[in-house]
Amino acid sequence: MVTKMYYGEILLICFCSIYSVQTLPVTMVRRQLMLLSSTMVHGYEIMQQQKPYLIEFFKRNNVSEVIFVPYAKVNGDYDGYTKMMADAIATFELQTSVKGLHTFDDPVEAIKAAQCIYIGGGNSFVLLKKLYDLNLVELIHKRVLEDGMAYMGSSAGSNVATRSIQTTNDMPIIYPPSFDALNLVPFNINPHYIDADKNSTHKGETREDRIKEFHIINEAAVLGLPEGTLLAVDDNKATLKGIANARLFTRTESREYQPESDLSFLLEK
Amino acid sequence: MVTKMYYGEILLICFCSIYSVQTLPVTMVRRQLMLLSSTMVHGYEIMQQQKPYLIEFFKRNNVSEVIFVPYAKVNGDYDGYTKMMADAIATFELQTSVKGLHTFDDPVEAIKAAQCIYIGGGNSFVLLKKLYDLNLVELIHKRVLEDGMAYMGSSAGSNVATRSIQTTNDMPIIYPPSFDALNLVPFNINPHYIDADKNSTHKGETREDRIKEFHIINEAAVLGLPEGTLLAVDDNKATLKGIANARLFTRTESREYQPESDLSFLLEK
Repeated sequence: MVTKMYYGEILLICFCSIYSVQTLPVTMVRRQLMLLSSTMVHGYEIMQQQKPYLIEFFKRNNVSEVIFVPYAKVNGDYDGYTKMMADAIATFELQTSVKGLHTFDDPVEAIKAAQCIYIGGGNSFVLLKKLYDLNLVELIHKRVLEDGMAYMGSSAGSNVATRSIQTTNDMPIIYPPSFDALNLVPFNINPHYIDADKNSTHKGETREDRIKEFHIINEAAVLGLPEGTLLAVDDNKATLKGIANARLFTRTESREYQPESDLSFLLEK
Repeated sequence: MVTKMYYGEILLICFCSIYSVQTLPVTMVRRQLMLLSSTMVHGYEIMQQQKPYLIEFFKRNNVSEVIFVPYAKVNGDYDGYTKMMADAIATFELQTSVKGLHTFDDPVEAIKAAQCIYIGGGNSFVLLKKLYDLNLVELIHKRVLEDGMAYMGSSAGSNVATRSIQTTNDMPIIYPPSFDALNLVPFNINPHYIDADKNSTHKGETREDRIKEFHIINEAAVLGLPEGTLLAVDDNKATLKGIANARLFTRTESREYQPESDLSFLLEK
């Protein structure tokens, strides 16, 4: 009798385990991303233009602690950079704790245990190389898409969130082992996107020219996010937020989208 | 007697060979470079602003044939690109023949036999990858520095002439096997250099910001060449030419130089 109950319990545990694994992607795991063009926006203090969207994001995901990833900062002042972001997040008055990833003895273990990470801007090449050096690329990909770890990125942090850093504006000041990035979304982002100045006499390529060159070789759509915009991704729904229009480039056309536009179609591969 | 003469001839040939090889670097081989910021300059037709300097360069080097390297052109219209450059060079009225490297069955043999090559602008990543794919990087380096093959580059073609493409403005739309380039000069160039627009409300990095980030990681000087300028290198003498001031960045300072400035110190390693 005792033996039968024992087996019964094992069967019940096995059933629950299989059931929960199979249903996780549908019922529990929701991709949670906030991909900012920049934290600095003309006319605003740092992160204040995005504040209402970020408060909603933190509340919805019950974020009590953010691990800030400062590695895009080329000068290595990770403490100063983390403090600046912690101060900005403190203005949300959510009592969110912010810790720099560089302060952990083991970055891999820190990311494994993280509830939410925020990757800041700087140089995309420097950032991506560091993520590869620390063996964090595959881990962050899995934690976001399989465990639902919340992800916030700005500028270079939004670049690396996409399939590759191939539409960065940064100079290639260091050689990363690949341009492939975290692949949290199947398209590319161009942060700090800016339309060409029609009065300019400069003959160098415009941002649009450069993205068109990208599309001669690559197929993925490129979302040009001007400063003052972000893409909010809640599972399979993507919405443009902010105070400016974004420009979406495909191989065949480019099209402007207003804030609150539904861009969920970009998430389909 | 016949045998003795035979050996004598061999000795004479050997002596001449050794003599010519040993004296070549001192008496005959002179590094000959024209590194243009761009071929297009506001207010000028293509290559007309640089025309007097290029005529002098072609005459001084007795250039009768230019092999044009069109691989930076992302859309692959190498014929059209070569024709455009051939038409521009035709205005010099020197009867210089211009052939696209893509029209040769064996690019390596073509470069081995070339008197002068001209690498055109486009995307520096695409260009450098192609030069590696075709095994031309080391060959061009040797032919310019050891044989005195004349080299003309514009924009991406000036980027790849330097130690690396790390100060390009281009997007990394393709992954090259290295950022190391032809290393014809021991510094970096930023073509299409432009000072920051002080009235801009854009928060993205300025060109100067990006070069400063380069210098946090890298030591080499960076010559910011605005459109309308070029660097003429005659052996170990480097002179700024054109209609605008260039800006030279080192790790500790940046300084403007007027046209006709002697920048030979940049050639010292």
